[in-house]
Amino acid sequence: MAKQPKNAISPRRDEDYSQWYQEVVKAADLAENSPVRGCMNIKPWGYALWENLVDNLDARFKKTGVKNAYFPIFIPLRFLEQEAEHVEGFAKECAVVTHHRLEKGPQGGLVPAGPLTEPYVVRPTSETIIGEAFSRWVNSWRDLPVLINQWANVVRWEMRTRIFLRTSEFLWQEGHTAHATEAEARERTLQMLAVYEDFAKNEMALPVLTGEKTPAERFPGAVSTYCIEAMMQDRKALQAGTSHFLGQNFARSSQIRFQSDQGVDELAWTTSWGVSTRLVGGLIMTHADDDGMVMPPAVASAHVVIMPIAKDPAVREGVMEYAQSLKRELEAQTFHGRNLVVEMDDRDAGGRAWDWIKKGVPVRVEVGPRDMAENAVFTGRRDTPGHKKESMPRADFVAKITDILGEIQDNLYRRALAFREEHSVKLDGRDEFYDFFTPENPETPGIHGGFALSGWCGDPACEAKIKEDLTVTIRLVPISGEKEACPCVLCGKPSEGRVVFAKSY
Amino acid sequence: MAKQPKNAISPRRDEDYSQWYQEVVKAADLAENSPVRGCMNIKPWGYALWENLVDNLDARFKKTGVKNAYFPIFIPLRFLEQEAEHVEGFAKECAVVTHHRLEKGPQGGLVPAGPLTEPYVVRPTSETIIGEAFSRWVNSWRDLPVLINQWANVVRWEMRTRIFLRTSEFLWQEGHTAHATEAEARERTLQMLAVYEDFAKNEMALPVLTGEKTPAERFPGAVSTYCIEAMMQDRKALQAGTSHFLGQNFARSSQIRFQSDQGVDELAWTTSWGVSTRLVGGLIMTHADDDGMVMPPAVASAHVVIMPIAKDPAVREGVMEYAQSLKRELEAQTFHGRNLVVEMDDRDAGGRAWDWIKKGVPVRVEVGPRDMAENAVFTGRRDTPGHKKESMPRADFVAKITDILGEIQDNLYRRALAFREEHSVKLDGRDEFYDFFTPENPETPGIHGGFALSGWCGDPACEAKIKEDLTVTIRLVPISGEKEACPCVLCGKPSEGRVVFAKSY
Repeated sequence: MAKQPKNAISPRRDEDYSQWYQEVVKAADLAENSPVRGCMNIKPWGYALWENLVDNLDARFKKTGVKNAYFPIFIPLRFLEQEAEHVEGFAKECAVVTHHRLEKGPQGGLVPAGPLTEPYVVRPTSETIIGEAFSRWVNSWRDLPVLINQWANVVRWEMRTRIFLRTSEFLWQEGHTAHATEAEARERTLQMLAVYEDFAKNEMALPVLTGEKTPAERFPGAVSTYCIEAMMQDRKALQAGTSHFLGQNFARSSQIRFQSDQGVDELAWTTSWGVSTRLVGGLIMTHADDDGMVMPPAVASAHVVIMPIAKDPAVREGVMEYAQSLKRELEAQTFHGRNLVVEMDDRDAGGRAWDWIKKGVPVRVEVGPRDMAENAVFTGRRDTPGHKKESMPRADFVAKITDILGEIQDNLYRRALAFREEHSVKLDGRDEFYDFFTPENPETPGIHGGFALSGWCGDPACEAKIKEDLTVTIRLVPISGEKEACPCVLCGKPSEGRVVFAKSY
Repeated sequence: MAKQPKNAISPRRDEDYSQWYQEVVKAADLAENSPVRGCMNIKPWGYALWENLVDNLDARFKKTGVKNAYFPIFIPLRFLEQEAEHVEGFAKECAVVTHHRLEKGPQGGLVPAGPLTEPYVVRPTSETIIGEAFSRWVNSWRDLPVLINQWANVVRWEMRTRIFLRTSEFLWQEGHTAHATEAEARERTLQMLAVYEDFAKNEMALPVLTGEKTPAERFPGAVSTYCIEAMMQDRKALQAGTSHFLGQNFARSSQIRFQSDQGVDELAWTTSWGVSTRLVGGLIMTHADDDGMVMPPAVASAHVVIMPIAKDPAVREGVMEYAQSLKRELEAQTFHGRNLVVEMDDRDAGGRAWDWIKKGVPVRVEVGPRDMAENAVFTGRRDTPGHKKESMPRADFVAKITDILGEIQDNLYRRALAFREEHSVKLDGRDEFYDFFTPENPETPGIHGGFALSGWCGDPACEAKIKEDLTVTIRLVPISGEKEACPCVLCGKPSEGRVVFAKSY
């Protein structure tokens, strides 16, 4: 019997995927559950990753003419009520502020006091409060388009939470734009979807599919919702970003009106689009392995860790100087427009290399007296099996580091893409579709299923039945590529093309 | 009689300072009051300024070893109650979340539902929730120091609000550190104070004084509170940043304990320090004038605006190309480590130059067919009286732009410093002190007073009496410089040195 290699993370993915995820988050020191129900503490190593996602996306938004602004965290109840579908969608998960101070209660402890005449909701999203501002900012066609983004925290009181993927409070960006014409608003919706797609693929190494949500899966109040969807390593789908064409629904409820260039009073057309700290969860579930986190270099909290071997006081000073000058040479270089971030770990600790493997740093370097004598470095890559290490002339390493990072970045993308393709299948028969999504043993469902590319007749009843039977939903209806006519996988009626069915987070 | 120049802002500072401030915020399009009580919408031009403050400070924090993280917006009541002085200080101004969903009420509208068993407070500051995390993160002296910063929104339910200066919700950073020794924690407290001081002086062109607060003015729960204080143009003081040495008070209430290198179980020593969007208010009240906002180039939302004169279709293309290439040449340069931000305003609007004056952009450039023919530009500086414009060879302008920005930056600092010095006086007699802070006509108090550098015996009763009589407080007790013995300005008993008295925001 082959010897089972010992992994840093227990359980392994194939043993208990959900627990594996929790253990990776913990071992990589990315975040932790907080004592506040459903909320997390994002720790420095996890927050640095989020900052890199933020900086990169922010620059991409600004390039398209979007400007940042900030709106209140509290939304008056009457604002939320203006759009019927919208309030319906969020009423069940709102944190409500009802008082504005604390007082000594009858038992001596503090109790809420100073009741508000109108309660506030902690924003679950900001269409209504930003819509109110737009209604004042926009008077003429000359004031359009308005292109605004906000980086903010939002609260949705989720019943079942999972760190990064679904938390009661999360960090996100929400873009909100208003336009004079439907065509321009639709174009902006798809433009931002394309920004997300490019960002996910090229920076996060996430192979995402893009498409449109069915009416049942739309954002409450939207006319069309578009999304990027990625496959996690348990073959479930993760919605990683959405872009909504809101038509005139919110313009009507917020009264965003303008005088057109023809002198006619018109309602504006609006969009909104967002990604959140959920992206970090998607990154972990896509790239991490049984030894812990794996960070794509373009967004990694650090690119390289240098570990000097300098226990012996006789060589310590020399080795440290060798390591420090190497650090400076690396930090002077850039990868994907960002200066290399290099950690120096001079702890005299046996487990330090494993610490950095679990944290997912792309490249590890050890330098000791022997490397120094040979003007060499001893390097290891996070994306290679067994964490194989090799010695390399120092000058070569410095000259090649951005190529190495580029290879790792490409490798991670290719690996994730191959995984998705391996588990995406065209299924036309109802039985094979049901088999595909049904675990062999329902007691220990394990990892099964994937993306089923199948027909759907367009009837919400077929969609609902599949959801009820299998907890499988239509993740998206493709908006590009060739359409392949096929039967609806449930009722057999004709479908114009294939849609993507999957279980999801 | 000299002709009264017409200003862009009405009223002028000397007519109604408070109203002038509101009008500048409006004319410069920095922010607006929101429909949510005491909260503001920060508009793009104001938010860009805030982003520059954030980026600059963030880099300074990181240079000292601080890492960013994020903690929940909600604080369980029992956490707040752990530190007696702390909860006392914040109980009167807390937004309290008591419910987690909305339901149709008897009148048909939505009402709060799903009462929480324990209410949450929307964070007014995060010592207690971060302390809980530190208590788990720290076990041994090897885990110390912990150096954390959080960029976040906080809520304090203020009764009287004023945009940027005192709002119910504001944006800020809060640093929180834990140390093994008192000396190290005290050193960190003063190190961050020095970061704020240097940042205020060199980036914001704010001449600030540094010192320690009296016990009456301390942060609730702190052992020592240090601050930077600036003089506004109405001669009132603005506390622009604080750094607190918290002793072991919060370590005790949160149980941040560690085993020392001697194997002894000890309590950690903690600090916290913060600045907020209030800085934007301070910037306006220091530099703006009767024509609107004035932005110091180092943190300005944009450095330069180019206004092409290209109405005539025959020359439009050429002038626009001339303007665009100028923009590119400017944007390739850096000032205070940041690439120049250049706005292009090609509107055919008479008032556009005044728009940019009101917005406070440091340098304006007009380019028309004549300038193009002469290879020249027509420039105006925001810091010169009368907005005098001059023609300059284009190449000279491009070569000198960073020098020009540097001159403006220095000018603004020098002007603010001279203003503060002009209105800072040593006062030893009680009567002259009372006169200094008493307007000639109480009905129309106008601008009066300033910083009184006077003695204080150390008795809280003297401090309280002055506050009651004059609404004047001790802004700070200097911690450096020579001490000049003098009498307490109220009771005449000896004082070791002078402290700074002022009215304040």
